[in-house]
Amino acid sequence: MKTTLFALAALTATGGALAQSSSVTLFGVVDASVAHVSTKDGSVTGLANGGNASSRLGFRGVEDLGNGLKASFWLEGGINVDDGGSGFKFDRRSTIGLLGNFGEVRLGRDKTPTYQNLETFHAFGDSGMGAINGHNLISSSAAGTIEGSNPKRYSNSISYLLPKMNGFYGQASYAFGEKAKGNSNSLSSSMGVRLGYGNGPLNVALGYGTTKGGTAADTINYKTFNLGASYNFGMLTPMVLIASERGNNQRVDLYSVGVKAPVGPGEVRAAVSWYKDKKRNERDSVRLALGYGYKLSKRTELYATVAHMSNDDNATRKLGTSLAHTVAAGKNATGYELGLRHNF
Amino acid sequence: MKTTLFALAALTATGGALAQSSSVTLFGVVDASVAHVSTKDGSVTGLANGGNASSRLGFRGVEDLGNGLKASFWLEGGINVDDGGSGFKFDRRSTIGLLGNFGEVRLGRDKTPTYQNLETFHAFGDSGMGAINGHNLISSSAAGTIEGSNPKRYSNSISYLLPKMNGFYGQASYAFGEKAKGNSNSLSSSMGVRLGYGNGPLNVALGYGTTKGGTAADTINYKTFNLGASYNFGMLTPMVLIASERGNNQRVDLYSVGVKAPVGPGEVRAAVSWYKDKKRNERDSVRLALGYGYKLSKRTELYATVAHMSNDDNATRKLGTSLAHTVAAGKNATGYELGLRHNF
Amino acid sequence: MKTTLFALAALTATGGALAQSSSVTLFGVVDASVAHVSTKDGSVTGLANGGNASSRLGFRGVEDLGNGLKASFWLEGGINVDDGGSGFKFDRRSTIGLLGNFGEVRLGRDKTPTYQNLETFHAFGDSGMGAINGHNLISSSAAGTIEGSNPKRYSNSISYLLPKMNGFYGQASYAFGEKAKGNSNSLSSSMGVRLGYGNGPLNVALGYGTTKGGTAADTINYKTFNLGASYNFGMLTPMVLIASERGNNQRVDLYSVGVKAPVGPGEVRAAVSWYKDKKRNERDSVRLALGYGYKLSKRTELYATVAHMSNDDNATRKLGTSLAHTVAAGKNATGYELGLRHNF
Repeated sequence: MKTTLFALAALTATGGALAQSSSVTLFGVVDASVAHVSTKDGSVTGLANGGNASSRLGFRGVEDLGNGLKASFWLEGGINVDDGGSGFKFDRRSTIGLLGNFGEVRLGRDKTPTYQNLETFHAFGDSGMGAINGHNLISSSAAGTIEGSNPKRYSNSISYLLPKMNGFYGQASYAFGEKAKGNSNSLSSSMGVRLGYGNGPLNVALGYGTTKGGTAADTINYKTFNLGASYNFGMLTPMVLIASERGNNQRVDLYSVGVKAPVGPGEVRAAVSWYKDKKRNERDSVRLALGYGYKLSKRTELYATVAHMSNDDNATRKLGTSLAHTVAAGKNATGYELGLRHNF
Repeated sequence: MKTTLFALAALTATGGALAQSSSVTLFGVVDASVAHVSTKDGSVTGLANGGNASSRLGFRGVEDLGNGLKASFWLEGGINVDDGGSGFKFDRRSTIGLLGNFGEVRLGRDKTPTYQNLETFHAFGDSGMGAINGHNLISSSAAGTIEGSNPKRYSNSISYLLPKMNGFYGQASYAFGEKAKGNSNSLSSSMGVRLGYGNGPLNVALGYGTTKGGTAADTINYKTFNLGASYNFGMLTPMVLIASERGNNQRVDLYSVGVKAPVGPGEVRAAVSWYKDKKRNERDSVRLALGYGYKLSKRTELYATVAHMSNDDNATRKLGTSLAHTVAAGKNATGYELGLRHNF
Repeated sequence: MKTTLFALAALTATGGALAQSSSVTLFGVVDASVAHVSTKDGSVTGLANGGNASSRLGFRGVEDLGNGLKASFWLEGGINVDDGGSGFKFDRRSTIGLLGNFGEVRLGRDKTPTYQNLETFHAFGDSGMGAINGHNLISSSAAGTIEGSNPKRYSNSISYLLPKMNGFYGQASYAFGEKAKGNSNSLSSSMGVRLGYGNGPLNVALGYGTTKGGTAADTINYKTFNLGASYNFGMLTPMVLIASERGNNQRVDLYSVGVKAPVGPGEVRAAVSWYKDKKRNERDSVRLALGYGYKLSKRTELYATVAHMSNDDNATRKLGTSLAHTVAAGKNATGYELGLRHNF
């Protein structure tokens, strides 16, 4: 259920038909969990944010312009339920778009095409103790890039999305670096494409993106590629994800297989994910994650997740996205959380 | 009046009964005043924020899950009406909870149990020129604690609230410090309990809380205790508050008596508060506050407050919560404000 | 169309009449454009924010108190659609007011009286590539002032607005500096007045304001004056603006003529603006701006703007308000943008 605020003034003036076609919707997710992560060096327990889905607050709307044309906007910001956050901003999505038979043109800040595959084809998405952690495989602070070697979102972007046609979907995005020509500091434009096919039980999609980093004299092009697929057999929905990120003489690959299965009034989720550093020794990791979500209603879920990260001698990969912890080189980590998620 | 946004989409689909039980509410307070504070060294005049009630904006909702169970969320952030603020965040409250016959379990950031007594049993609450200023009596920057020696709110907390039963109410809260075991930097977990009885004209409650500060080698446990009571005689509601805060070889006690009385289309408020530093000389203070709130409607109030702080030779206690000013050691301060408060 | 959220609870309790008179409105603007600015030294292309109108999100409400008296609040913050922004805050306007036959008294942060003329009597307002850039003509970081030599908005202000009478309108505002008496650091109080006449096709207004800067020993009073007028002939609406800013041994004058004209399903806008530095040599500039706004609906507009800034040898004036760029002394700049603006 979304809380759609029909424009009552317009409804009075023009009747229900128009009012139905123009709306502003207030929406959000509030999600918190008690979480624990331990390694042989120590452990930490606390309240984590977004264990099942990222906590957020948003405002969005669609206006019917006639002749099959629509204008839309979407303003969505992340929330830290655990501590109230450090400053609300529309960092998750802030876009304005025009939609029609031709598809959609969208301007602003939005998820990258490649990132959408990472969260779609992992049983835990990008939230909580079992989160895929699948972007910025090389570096979250890659020189000269704005948000790492493979950003989760593009600022200053323009996107084109295909209209729905026989199950095919797709998107191409370009993010301006906004650096002056001749600027020797850095180049940080990005582009990405995604093409998929979702029809009945099958969903399959591939993505490709590049991000420019470095200085003008020493440009580094980070490249990312991924391919995901899932098939809903009813009893269970297996899924597979292959991703690779390359640049600056590094390459990290990610392989993940997972499954979602309805069990009782909820859903079991499981995934195994392999991180392979192809250029450096002893930097691989394997993560196992197992969880159950108990649906209290369509909008509200009690969930529990356990996960284990097995790190090679030089690897330091962590678990989850919220509870701060450190993992020394070669140490394994075990985490669990029990939480409550509510959509509005 | 609260602006409750019934879920119209759901209402259409499922009928009024469910729609009534699931709602998202937008609410807030906007409050500003012209304020003045003077000491013998000088004076300052300006626009103050929240002279009668803290300015805020919030979103909250309740979902009926059936069988007496409910899910709820509450997102509320402070607003500076005087200058627009430095960054909106859900710092006043960000919680998700499950409610039932058993009471409520709540996760997130919320007011501490002890703080609720401070604002309840003082005629001016914690707002404006007559504000109780009753938490962090020892230090608002106590070493190793997150928000002082006695925080107003807990981040990373889990609370249990008693169900209503024969007038008794109560709450126990624990706030994770989220420090790794063996971490030598600081420990900052907190806990607090509150137990009260409110029936007819009588309301009485006590609170107790601890906050861990310092380093692992030198742990400091700050402790706070308070007891408040009020009785509504109709013509007037007298109230009393006793509070004490101890830790790091310090102890500060607070005693306050006050009264609220309906007079004409409004309410007279008065309070006398004594601050007693039990370990250090000449650090005591006494504050007198007198105010009147004229109700323009149930939601809107014009108010005026005058207050005087009498400081011992080494005391530097200030007046109010918004207008920045300094008080040199041993100087008295006089303040007044005239403002307008609106709830929505 | 504004999304007015009638207070449904009150509506149920008291009937439609009261509900109509008490409301909370959610409103906003989302505006982004692809923009380009070039000088002989280089160029930059990117996504700009607010090319046609400043992107924003707000909450406002009015309560009818009876006897012709109303209480109102207005909370409005700027949004960066291009990158999500760095922290949402109610920096555009945060006020509470009382309205009646006597006019309005308003407290909080609000646009200055003089600034309102600058945006009203320029064909491009203060948004986008053709923006007037007409405040802080001397300095946006004038010593001892909070927001430059001629602030766009006052924090900590109290305003009185005339009631509507025969077309005359007016406003006087005072912004507290909130500095203690005897404070040697800085003085930063401001005041401004605006008086206008708008009746039928004619609109004319003048504004005057002062801002105190500097130290107590060396006080600088910045003064600003402006006069604007427009006349709607139907086929076109010509407008003229004269502004001057003085202080700290500097003086910069601004002259601007412009026109808006309905053409097809939209509007042509054009303006020429002269910036005259009266105390320093070779610091003058001239800007030409031409644009067209194509109305997709009452709420949504596609727009295109081109602008050229011609700078004297020592002048460095830029174009627009969003896309970051530098203009070396004496270099001319050319910019254009193509964008989409949606009101909700």
